[in-house]
Parts: sequence; C-alpha cells; structure tokens
Amino acid sequence: MTDRQKDHLQSLGNNKAASIFDYDPSLLETFENAHPDRDYFVKFNYPEFTSLCPITHQPDYASLYISYVPAQRMVESKSLKLYFFSFRNHGDFHEDCINKIADDLIQLMDPKYLEVWGKFLPRGGISIDPYVNYGKPGTRWEQVAFERLSHHDLYPEKIDNR
Amino acid sequence: MTDRQKDHLQSLGNNKAASIFDYDPSLLETFENAHPDRDYFVKFNYPEFTSLCPITHQPDYASLYISYVPAQRMVESKSLKLYFFSFRNHGDFHEDCINKIADDLIQLMDPKYLEVWGKFLPRGGISIDPYVNYGKPGTRWEQVAFERLSHHDLYPEKIDNR
Amino acid sequence: MTDRQKDHLQSLGNNKAASIFDYDPSLLETFENAHPDRDYFVKFNYPEFTSLCPITHQPDYASLYISYVPAQRMVESKSLKLYFFSFRNHGDFHEDCINKIADDLIQLMDPKYLEVWGKFLPRGGISIDPYVNYGKPGTRWEQVAFERLSHHDLYPEKIDNR
Amino acid sequence: MTDRQKDHLQSLGNNKAASIFDYDPSLLETFENAHPDRDYFVKFNYPEFTSLCPITHQPDYASLYISYVPAQRMVESKSLKLYFFSFRNHGDFHEDCINKIADDLIQLMDPKYLEVWGKFLPRGGISIDPYVNYGKPGTRWEQVAFERLSHHDLYPEKIDNR
Amino acid sequence: MTDRQKDHLQSLGNNKAASIFDYDPSLLETFENAHPDRDYFVKFNYPEFTSLCPITHQPDYASLYISYVPAQRMVESKSLKLYFFSFRNHGDFHEDCINKIADDLIQLMDPKYLEVWGKFLPRGGISIDPYVNYGKPGTRWEQVAFERLSHHDLYPEKIDNR
Amino acid sequence: MTDRQKDHLQSLGNNKAASIFDYDPSLLETFENAHPDRDYFVKFNYPEFTSLCPITHQPDYASLYISYVPAQRMVESKSLKLYFFSFRNHGDFHEDCINKIADDLIQLMDPKYLEVWGKFLPRGGISIDPYVNYGKPGTRWEQVAFERLSHHDLYPEKIDNR
Amino acid sequence: MTDRQKDHLQSLGNNKAASIFDYDPSLLETFENAHPDRDYFVKFNYPEFTSLCPITHQPDYASLYISYVPAQRMVESKSLKLYFFSFRNHGDFHEDCINKIADDLIQLMDPKYLEVWGKFLPRGGISIDPYVNYGKPGTRWEQVAFERLSHHDLYPEKIDNR
Amino acid sequence: MTDRQKDHLQSLGNNKAASIFDYDPSLLETFENAHPDRDYFVKFNYPEFTSLCPITHQPDYASLYISYVPAQRMVESKSLKLYFFSFRNHGDFHEDCINKIADDLIQLMDPKYLEVWGKFLPRGGISIDPYVNYGKPGTRWEQVAFERLSHHDLYPEKIDNR
Amino acid sequence: MTDRQKDHLQSLGNNKAASIFDYDPSLLETFENAHPDRDYFVKFNYPEFTSLCPITHQPDYASLYISYVPAQRMVESKSLKLYFFSFRNHGDFHEDCINKIADDLIQLMDPKYLEVWGKFLPRGGISIDPYVNYGKPGTRWEQVAFERLSHHDLYPEKIDNR
Amino acid sequence: MTDRQKDHLQSLGNNKAASIFDYDPSLLETFENAHPDRDYFVKFNYPEFTSLCPITHQPDYASLYISYVPAQRMVESKSLKLYFFSFRNHGDFHEDCINKIADDLIQLMDPKYLEVWGKFLPRGGISIDPYVNYGKPGTRWEQVAFERLSHHDLYPEKIDNR
Ligand SMILES: [Ca+2]
Ligand SMILES: [Ca+2]
Ligand SMILES: [Ca+2]
Ligand SMILES: [Ca+2]
Ligand SMILES: [Ca+2]
Ligand SMILES: [Ca+2]
Ligand SMILES: [Ca+2]
Ligand SMILES: [Ca+2]
Ligand SMILES: [Ca+2]
Ligand SMILES: [Ca+2]
Ligand SMILES: [Ca+2]
Ligand SMILES: [Ca+2]
Ligand SMILES: [Ca+2]
Ligand SMILES: [Ca+2]
Ligand SMILES: [Ca+2]
Ligand SMILES: [Ca+2]
Repeated sequence: MTDRQKDHLQSLGNNKAASIFDYDPSLLETFENAHPDRDYFVKFNYPEFTSLCPITHQPDYASLYISYVPAQRMVESKSLKLYFFSFRNHGDFHEDCINKIADDLIQLMDPKYLEVWGKFLPRGGISIDPYVNYGKPGTRWEQVAFERLSHHDLYPEKIDNR
Repeated sequence: MTDRQKDHLQSLGNNKAASIFDYDPSLLETFENAHPDRDYFVKFNYPEFTSLCPITHQPDYASLYISYVPAQRMVESKSLKLYFFSFRNHGDFHEDCINKIADDLIQLMDPKYLEVWGKFLPRGGISIDPYVNYGKPGTRWEQVAFERLSHHDLYPEKIDNR
Repeated sequence: MTDRQKDHLQSLGNNKAASIFDYDPSLLETFENAHPDRDYFVKFNYPEFTSLCPITHQPDYASLYISYVPAQRMVESKSLKLYFFSFRNHGDFHEDCINKIADDLIQLMDPKYLEVWGKFLPRGGISIDPYVNYGKPGTRWEQVAFERLSHHDLYPEKIDNR
Repeated sequence: MTDRQKDHLQSLGNNKAASIFDYDPSLLETFENAHPDRDYFVKFNYPEFTSLCPITHQPDYASLYISYVPAQRMVESKSLKLYFFSFRNHGDFHEDCINKIADDLIQLMDPKYLEVWGKFLPRGGISIDPYVNYGKPGTRWEQVAFERLSHHDLYPEKIDNR
Repeated sequence: MTDRQKDHLQSLGNNKAASIFDYDPSLLETFENAHPDRDYFVKFNYPEFTSLCPITHQPDYASLYISYVPAQRMVESKSLKLYFFSFRNHGDFHEDCINKIADDLIQLMDPKYLEVWGKFLPRGGISIDPYVNYGKPGTRWEQVAFERLSHHDLYPEKIDNR
Repeated sequence: MTDRQKDHLQSLGNNKAASIFDYDPSLLETFENAHPDRDYFVKFNYPEFTSLCPITHQPDYASLYISYVPAQRMVESKSLKLYFFSFRNHGDFHEDCINKIADDLIQLMDPKYLEVWGKFLPRGGISIDPYVNYGKPGTRWEQVAFERLSHHDLYPEKIDNR
Repeated sequence: MTDRQKDHLQSLGNNKAASIFDYDPSLLETFENAHPDRDYFVKFNYPEFTSLCPITHQPDYASLYISYVPAQRMVESKSLKLYFFSFRNHGDFHEDCINKIADDLIQLMDPKYLEVWGKFLPRGGISIDPYVNYGKPGTRWEQVAFERLSHHDLYPEKIDNR
Repeated sequence: MTDRQKDHLQSLGNNKAASIFDYDPSLLETFENAHPDRDYFVKFNYPEFTSLCPITHQPDYASLYISYVPAQRMVESKSLKLYFFSFRNHGDFHEDCINKIADDLIQLMDPKYLEVWGKFLPRGGISIDPYVNYGKPGTRWEQVAFERLSHHDLYPEKIDNR
Repeated sequence: MTDRQKDHLQSLGNNKAASIFDYDPSLLETFENAHPDRDYFVKFNYPEFTSLCPITHQPDYASLYISYVPAQRMVESKSLKLYFFSFRNHGDFHEDCINKIADDLIQLMDPKYLEVWGKFLPRGGISIDPYVNYGKPGTRWEQVAFERLSHHDLYPEKIDNR
Repeated sequence: MTDRQKDHLQSLGNNKAASIFDYDPSLLETFENAHPDRDYFVKFNYPEFTSLCPITHQPDYASLYISYVPAQRMVESKSLKLYFFSFRNHGDFHEDCINKIADDLIQLMDPKYLEVWGKFLPRGGISIDPYVNYGKPGTRWEQVAFERLSHHDLYPEKIDNR
C-alpha cells in the first residue's frame, strides 16, 4: 500500500472528522507528487464553500477556484474537503477566509505557485470576490504570480443577482 | 469589539442613512487591511446601481464591477451599499458617475490599484459602458494600470438589447 | 392628428412628469384598440422596475412581465413608463406592488385578460416573485385566468443569486 | 418548370422590388401545398424585421416568429422577405404591424391556422411583444386557435435589456 | 405601526436567532394577506439551503423553489430565512427536508396551494430533486394540486455535474 | 447472432452505400421491437442533415428531431444515417424533405406515433422549420397526434441568425 | 439504528461491490417511504451512465433522468449508484438499457409512477434518447402515465453535437 | 445651462433629423470631456445598426461595439444614434461602413484611441465582422492600437446562424 | 460600375457554378481593398462547411472562422461561398482542408495576416479543431502570426458532444 | 493506398482492440504530417473519458482537451479513441492519467508542442482539473510552453456541480 493510498483511506475512514465544523487546518493531508520534474497545474473547483459572517453569524456561501503548481507535496482532495467543512460554523470575513486558505495551503504543500479565488453570494445586493495568489520566492513562479495578479479578471463574468 | 466590527454595526444600525438618496461620499467607511504585506484583489459586483439622467431626470441603471488591490484601508461593504444608494435621486452622466466613484474610492482608501466598470442599460438603443482605472503613482501598480487599460475589454460581451 | 398621436406626444413633452417619483396611477393614459374584434396578446417586458422597502426604505428591484388581451382601450407605453417611475421613491411590499399594478391596469383599460409577474432581486438570499392575473368576469377569459393561474410557473427558471 | 419554380425565380430576378421600402402586401406570392391531406406546421423565424415609429419616425426592430398550418396555398419565402422589406420605411405601431402581417397572410393563403409573434427591442426601457393568432372558422383549428391563445407565453423568456 | 411592520422588525432585531442552527419551525412568522379576495401566486427562490446528511453528517446543499397561493396569512420572508438557517446543522434526508418544509408552511399559513421543489447537489454522481405539493382539501386547489403534480417536471433541466 | 446484430453489421460493412448521395429510402432497415407491450418514445437527434435547394442547387442544412412510439419494427440507426446521407446531393424544398422523411419512416416501421421536426439554417434572413406528425389511425395515438400538433412549439426558441 | 441507516451503511461499506461491473439488479436496495400518505415526486439526475454497444463493444454514454412517485418503498441512492456501475462493462442497446432500468425499479419499489429518460451521446452523428414511463395499474397514476407519455418532449432541447 | 445640456436638448428636440435616413456625418455632435487628465474607456454597444447592400439594395444588419479613450471632446450619444440612423437607406459594403464610422468619429473627436467592431448577420451562410482601430500618432496609444489589433478576437464567439 | 460590383454580379449570376461540388480554388474572386493604408481585420464566420472523409466517404461538418488583415486584394464573399461549396463532395482530412483553405486564400489575396480555424463535429466521440495562421514574411505581421499561434485557444470552449 | 489510409483502415478493422479495456499505449498509431514546414495547432476534444479510482475502483469521468503542434508524425484519431478506451477499467489518479497521456503522446509523436487538460466530474463536491504541457527542448516552443503554463486558466469557467 502506497503512502497516498494510506492517506486516502485514513480520510475515508475518518467520518468523525466530518462532524467537526470549526476551522482546523490540521485536517489537511498531503501525498507525494509523482511528477516532480514537470511544472504543471492542478485546479480544484469547490462551489459548496460556506462559512459564517463574524458579526451577524449569518451564513456566507462561495464558489472556490484553487489552482496550484506542485513541488514535492500535493494536497489530498478528501482531506481538503474536510478542511473546507471546518469553516462551516466558523466566523470570518470573505477576504480573510480566502487569505487563510491560501496561507494554509502554502504552508502545507510549499508549492511553486498557488492561487485562490472566492466568489461569494451577494449580501445587500453586493457580492465580493477576493483573489489571492503566490509564487515561491526565488523561483520563476514569483514573477509569474505578479503577472497573473496583474492580469486578474480582466473580463469579469456577468452578475445579475438572480 | 474590533474596529471593523464597530464600523459594520454602525452601518447596520444606521438605517436612517438609507433613506437619504442624494450623493454623499461621506457615507463611505473603511476598516484596516489584515493582510497589508500581500498584494491581492477584492472585487465588488453590484448589478443594482441606479442614478438619474441630469437633463431629463429619467432613471439610469448599471451593473458595476469594482476591483482593487488594498493598501492599508479597505472599504466596508455595507457603507459602500449606502454610498451607492446615495446616487438614486442624483443626476449625473454615465461617465461622470464612474469617474466620481473611482475618485471617491481612491480618496477613501488610497489603494494600490483600483478599477470601476459600469455597464448601463440602453437609451435610444445605445448602451454606454465607461471604464476607469488607477495605479498608485510611484508603485509597480502605476504601470499595471496602463497595461490593464491597454487590454481593456478586448473580447466584448454580446449585447442584443433584450 | 389621431387620438393616439396626441396621447403619445403629450407624454413625450411631459418631461416634468418624469421628475415625480411618487406613486401616481393618474399618469397612465390609453389609446383605442384598432383591432377590437380580435382577441390577441400584448406583452410588456420591463426589467427596470424599482421601489423602496416600506420598512427599511432600502431599494428593491424587479423585472416585470405584463401580458394582456385588450378590449376597447390599450395602455400607452410611454405613460406606462412614467407610471413605473412613480414607484421609484415609493415604499411598498413586493406582493403589494404587483397587486397594485394589476389593479391599476385593470381599472384603466378594462381588459379581457391581464397578468403581472414580478421577479425581484434577492434580499437575505431569498428572492420573491409574485404573480397576479385576471379574466373579465362573464367572459371566457374568466376561465382562462384560472387555468393560467393553475399552470403558473410549472418549470421555474434556475436561480443562483449571482 | 413547376409553378413554384417560376414563383421562386420571379422573386430571385425581381431585385428592383427589393429597393421599394414601403408597405406592399402585393409582393407576397404563393405556391401550391404538395401535402394538402396532412395538417402540419411550417414556421418562419425572422429576426431582421424593422419598421418606423409612426410618430417619431425612428426605427423599430423585432424578431418575428410566424407559424401556420397550410391549406391549399403556401407563402413563398423569398416573396415573404420582400414583403418584410416593405415595412422598412413604413410607420406603424408594434401591435398594428403584427395584426397587419397576420391579416395579409390569412388573406393570401387562407390557412387552417396561423400565428404571428413579434418581439420588439425596448424603447424607454420597455419592450413590447404582440401575439396574434387565427384558426379557420368552421374547422377544428378555430378551437385550437383559442387554446393556443389561452396558453400563450406561460413561461416568458428572461429579458434584461442588454 | 402595522402588524407586518412589527413582525418584520422583530426579525430584523432578532439577530441572536440567526446563531441557532438547529431545526426550529417556531421561527416562522406570518403577516396578513392584504389581497384575500384574489387567488395569486408568491414564489420564493432560495439557492442557499444547506443541511447535514443524517448518517455521515456531511453537508448537503439545495436550491429551493417554493410557490404558494395565500389564504389569510403569509409567511414573513426574514423569518423564513431564519427558519432555513435552522437546518444548517440539522441532519435529515433530502426528501424528508422537503416534506418537512412543506408541512411546516402548510401548518403555518393554511394556504390554498403550496409546492416545494428542492434541487440538491450530487453525491456519488447522483443528484436528488424531491417535489411536494398541496391543495387545500375542499377547494378547487385540491384538484389543481393533483394536476400540477401530474405535469411536474415534464421538461427536466440539463444536468452535467459541473 | 440475432436479427438485429445482422442488420447492424450489414450496415457497418456496407461502406459503399455511404458513397451514394442520392435519395434512397431503400437504405432504411429495421429490427424487432423487444418491448412491444409497452408504449414508449425513442428520439433521434440529427443536427447534420443537408440537402440541396431544388432551384438554385445550393446546399441547405437542418437539425432534425425525430420522435416515435414503436409498434413491431424499429429503424436501425446506422441505416438511418445512410438514408440521411442520401439527401446530400438531392434537391428538395424544406417542407417536402420533412414530409418525405415522415412518410418513409411511417411506411418502414408502421409505428404507433411519429413526428419529424426540421430546423433549417436561414436563407435570405428567414429560417424555416417544418413539423409533421402522425398517429396510427384507429389507435389512441391518432388523437395524441392531433393534440401534439395543437400544442406544437408554443414556446419557440430564440433565433438571432448568429 | 433505523432500517435506512443500516441499508445506507451496508452500501457504504460494500466497496467490493463497486468493482463488479456487470449488470446486477440485485444490487438495488430500498428503504421505507416516511410519507406514504402523500403523493410526491423524487427525481434522480445521473449524467455519468455508461454501458457498451452489444455489437462493437465500444462504450456508450448517457445522462439519465429518473422521476417517480413512491408507494411504500424507495430506492436507496448509493445502491442505485452501484446498480448503474453494473452496466459499465455490460453490452446492451440504448432502448433496452432504459427499458431494463425502468423494469428493475418498478420491480424493486412497486411505485405509483415512474419514468426513465436516457439522453445518449451521438454515434454516427445521431444521438438517441429513449423515454419509458409507467403508472401503477388500477390507480389514477395509470392515466397520468399515458398523459405524460402523450406530452413527452414537446419542446426538445437544441442539439448540435458539440 | 451647460454646453452639454444644450447639445443634448438640441438632439432631443431635433426629431425631424430622425426622418433623414441618408448618411450624414454632420449629425454628430460633441461635448467636452470632464476628465481630460485621465485616460479611460467609453464603450457604445449598438445592436440596431442597419444599412443597405450597395449592389442588391437589400438590408444588412449589424451589432456595433465602439470603444474609445477620449481626449478633449466626446461624442454625444443621441447625436450618435441619429448618425447611425443615417445609414438606414445608405448603400455600403460591410467593411466600408466600419471604416467610415471609425474615420468619422476620429475626425469628430480626435480621440487618443478608438476601435469599431461590426458583427453583421449572415448572407449566403457567411457572416462578416470587420474590426478597425486607431491610436493617436505620437502618443502611447499608437502602440496600444497595434497591440490590440494584434490580439484581436483570439477567442472568437460561437456562430451557428440560428 | 466598379470592379467590385462587376465581381459581385458575376458571382450572383453564376448559379451554374453552385452545382459544381468538387474542390475548385479558381472559384475565388477578389476586389480591391478600399483602405490599403490601414491595417484592419475582416472575419468570416461560416458554420456550414462540409466535406467528405477521404477513406470512408462519409460527410464531415465544421464551423470555419477565418480572419485576415488585407493588403491590396480582398476575397469576394459570394465567391468564397461557392469555393466552400466545392468541398461538398471532395474527400480530405480535417487538417488538410484547413491548410488548403489557408493556402488558397494566401495565394489569392497575398494578405498581411490570415488565420483559419475549423471546428469539426465529433467522430468516434472525438472532435478535431485544426488552426492555421500566417503572417506575411518581412512585415510586422510575421511576428504577430507567431504570437497569435503561441496564444491560440488558451481558454477552450466547453464541449459535451450534444 | 497511402500510409495514412492503411493506418486508418487497420484501426477500423481492429474492432477486437475495442474490447480491451486496460491501459495500452501501444494502441496509438501515427501518420505523416503533410504540412511539416508550417507550425499549426490541432486540438482534440474528448468529453467521454473514463477511468477508475485506483483505491475505491469507482468510475471517474473527464472531458479531455488536447492541443498540439505537430512535427513529423501525427496521432491517428481512431487509434487515439482506442487508446482512451484502454483507460476504462484502469485505476489511476486524475493527475496521473493526465501526465501519462501527455507522456505517451510526446513519446509517440515527438511534437513541437503539446498540452493536455482534463476536467473531471466532482467527487465529494470537489472537481479536479489537471493541466500538463510541453515544448520541445531547444525549439522556440520550449519558451511558448512556459508562457502558456504561466497564463493557464486565468479566467476559469463557472462550476456549480449541477
Ligand atoms: Ca438586471
Ligand atoms: Ca443566476
Ligand atoms: Ca433602447
Ligand atoms: Ca439581434
Ligand atoms: Ca442578496
Ligand atoms: Ca445570474
Ligand atoms: Ca431601453
Ligand atoms: Ca439579454
Ligand atoms: Ca458530460
Ligand atoms: Ca452545470
Ligand atoms: Ca442567412
Ligand atoms: Ca444564435
Ligand atoms: Ca450543443
Ligand atoms: Ca455542447
Ligand atoms: Ca450547427
Ligand atoms: Ca450554487
């Protein structure tokens, strides 16, 4: 049984974890990148993110789009799901959630590149979409990060609140 | 109670403000950027903007897309909503509304970068979409602003007035 | 100059009227149906409706879809626009706006059939869509009205608040 | 050369006709229905209709959807195009255009059933969609016409004026 | 201050209630139907519904579409939101949630007609969409309920799990 | 090897047939309905239909939608494809193609019910969509055919010629 | 632990079952309908169906839409998934798959009403969409089944093979 | 009364002008740019453009997308509408219309940058979309014009002639 | 009569040509570019392309998107249509069709820049989209061609074979 | 008979190969690039990819988008289809499938450039989209590969798991 298979099964069996709905980055687990000599992208689409407003304690909802270029370690997707669950009853502002997710994944994987885009549902008619990215200092991805930030969302999607 | 919580609650309780429908940039409030060492984007989608034509006094409608890179201060979203309300009975041309909103937010937050795109409903079969952006002089965002302006709307959305 | 041309021009020249943003059904004007021997439909699409919440005085927005079968009189569309403008600073609940619009148009035109469907933008994550219809008592349209009500919105559109 | 081929070629060669942009129902030509024993539908989609406002003389635009069940004669599509062209500089209200088109086609073809739906571009933020239909008196299509009218547009398309 | 204004403000001030995320139908409040002599529809679109799987305790998500014909009482929308919040940490199967919501709203309002359609996100590649409706026994809406059930979802939307 | 397997393989091996691009209904083959005691629908979607204008010999294109309720025999789909190919260099008017296809399939299968809807690309800005249907005389499907014809295309798709 | 919880967990733990990719209706399990006194719909959307062509052994793909009105027993969704998996390496014609699925679910649940609609990907440019439905003999759902069959797919979706 | 208000009202009152449907660039009027120190974009969407084929005199239709960066003068939108009307009975090839519109607006406003994209309806199955742009010589916009031209329409929209 | 008018009419009258369905680049005709001092784009959208598979002789279908920057000569669109018709019964692989069309148009017009993108319908579940471009050697468009090739289709459209 | 025709027919006749559903890159065949002096793109769209999860052995599904710039050899599309089939019962992680496909095609064709983008269906609410690309070392395509990787997916598609 490989390292990854064990990680995967540990999450699969760890259904108790799913009942813990408070922010816990220690839920995140990694496996080894099988293609460390190639720079490539992996994207996670997660339209089921929810957290709480830290002031009113009312629910917030977002679709998350996370892309990264792995170095040695990659985040295991089932543990990522449990980590997302841990925001369910956690109060935080939109932009803090997105920064925190980026920080936790950088800390976890030490990737070459990573970006997190959250598209939240409107409150008071306004929806807020924070976008955070990162390129590993000292690599060519540091410059890529700034270029991607510079070109972020040049052609925004149409929003009509329905 | 943090600075931001107070700002937020002040707006929440300030329902009288909502009944004032004339242009008032003093409604805008800020809170402190919790991630000042990272350049990142925050976007507001606001498809509920309305103002008046300064000549005929008939209503105009627009979807606003505002993106910025915060420096020290960030605009509080509920105060932003009240600020938008303050255009409701205010007469101004499309391009002046968009320039004014950009100026007010630059003045308020002193951001690294900011852009405002208004997409108005058609009058006489023509719809008008002004786009204004800004990069803080002396930073790398000054150059980014020109590059984003240069690449603005290269792939326009389809419009059929229905 | 026909009756309709006069009505039309009266509205065109009546720009002062446009500056009055409080509910006024007397703004509505009619012209004569040129095809009184044929039952046919006329639909108005109006995605620019706005009024105020009667409690918080915050703006509400809706797309209105109004269909009717004319009898002798038909509503002049420019006067209808001015009538819609008159809700701009008027406070009323969603379902009361829609009932009121239906009542005013029935009163004005005495149509064979009429329906008003309002699709409002969400507040608190919930959007509300009232639908009111009417068939002239004693005509076959009375029964049609109930049948259309019975089949109303069997296949609702997808809503995701973005 | 069949009857239909001659009609078709007459229109193809009749390019002078295309330069006449005033309403002329005599442009319409027919050919014989090759399947007179079967009741079936033929629909014309024509998103290129334009006429003038009879008061302001400004252009109006519509997409026309015409469906009919032929009896003995069918309208030749190239002559139909020329007939539509003849509205180009002709002033008429939306609902009168649609009634007139229905009347002309009924007069021309004596069909079992016919309907005309015009979806016009908005003026003053309001778009107007007249719908007229007809079933030949004394046939089962007379009752169908009323049933189709009764069920007309129960699920209206979304309109946002963009 | 009217009955409805009081209900509304009670909910607005009742922010503590929002922090209670366990199922509680007593959160629902009503106001009086201002148009009791007219049968008309009110629809709520709520794409932000979330509950827990009763077995794995993992989150489920649904878009709810609720339509009803009011009799004397109507559900206040802010209380409806709080009621929906109360499912957040509550474990229940999809079809039980939808039946329960229907039962609670029938109990609350005693409406002439009511339907609840839940469209859940997929689990294991399968998404589940329960639909429940009700017509008040002894009224014409009892028969309408069966007819609407009979014609339910004849033209299902396209689903591709992305 | 079943009857159907033989039919299927005969078509698969019959590639010469594909090079014959003139109308040939003898290409159609059938297999036996395995569920003769159940009335059910089978639909073919074929967006690749092309024929020639019988006058100008220029190509025409259509999407075909064919639905039927089988009795004893069902059309084999690969032979259906070859039959469609046989229109490629064949000149015929739109409504004649659709009537002919319906006639050939009725002749071939003697189905309980059948309908053919062709949606052609525009010529001269007008697109033509013939619709033919059939219910076996003396069965309940004869009445269904008229009811489906009566309700045909009540909610036409949006066409903009782009 | 309820009956349903046991069923659910049996499937969850039964991962070996997932490795069996040949048709096996015995994989299907039921739980008890908690609302037996109400007629209501449950729909399953499953866009991940795949089987093999019985002649060429090449894969086929379909989106399945299954709706039913439960009587006493309801199909457990995880067992339904395993049942769908069992078609993966199973050879069968499109219409036989859909008939078989309908038969198996009727056999399993003895529902009041059930329908299965399969929308397959095109082969040779043609896509095939079988639709089967059933109403329990001797109940009002027998008549509903014929009415739903009669109105099946009156407004077909647009297909362009891309 | 400002300069712009006078221009605007002159156009509003100038309804006679609307009846002149032959090409007349003198209809164009300007007002002063209120933000001359900022480079920003203004876009006009005009899906109602129509002219004539110079050879067959049959109507052509296009959606126009015009974007520019103003210098001292800006085009008044109502005069722009009248200018577009002046093409109604004017014969010109697609690419000549677009070049002419660009030339007229450059001549009128002396802008820093301007682009005109016309998307015409198909004739003979082919639709033609000319795109012209311009950067004021000697400014940085001269280089931007070439870069925008170089990146023009890299991701073309899907066209299917329906 | 200008050069272009003659070319155009020659094609219009040349209906015999349309009956020739074998590949013939000599059908292509040009007219003179009226704006030779300006670099601008012209795009042709042609969703009606069809040819034959050179091995099985079965039909292939594609949407073609052709963009170019003219030098002295421009391709006449009606002759382009006849040229496309000439592929109808011609056997060629997808990528050879697209290369051949590019070569023929380069040969014909000697343009500054040209690109041809073919999007074919799927065969065996796979669709193939060749893209060829060209910049005139020794001009700045040579470098643009490589840059456009380098950025080709970075954001591919969603394909689901339906 | 050319080299390519032979390859093609070998695959067409090789139906036994289709019944082998375990990973086999030796199924891939090539033909010679007929345009070796031109750098151009060929894209394959394949929305029918399926493999197994290596741990649970449950099916995974993806849409594959593969683009490449050929050198001397090109992959034959029917052999590509068989190669994709060979993943059907093969267990592999998403990112390993995509890397493996890229490696096999690079090995097979020695292309100038190649990219593989897999968009998988969600599991646990998360969908994973790996993207791998390659530019031949020592050519200008090596640098293009990094630039395309740097600009990958800047504008992600909207995902909602339905
Ligand atoms: Ca809107
Ligand atoms: Ca939405
Ligand atoms: Ca307009
Ligand atoms: Ca249009
Ligand atoms: Ca909201
Ligand atoms: Ca939306
Ligand atoms: Ca308008
Ligand atoms: Ca629109
Ligand atoms: Ca799919
Ligand atoms: Ca989707
Ligand atoms: Ca056309
Ligand atoms: Ca279209
Ligand atoms: Ca499609
Ligand atoms: Ca598609
Ligand atoms: Ca097509
Ligand atoms: Ca959603």
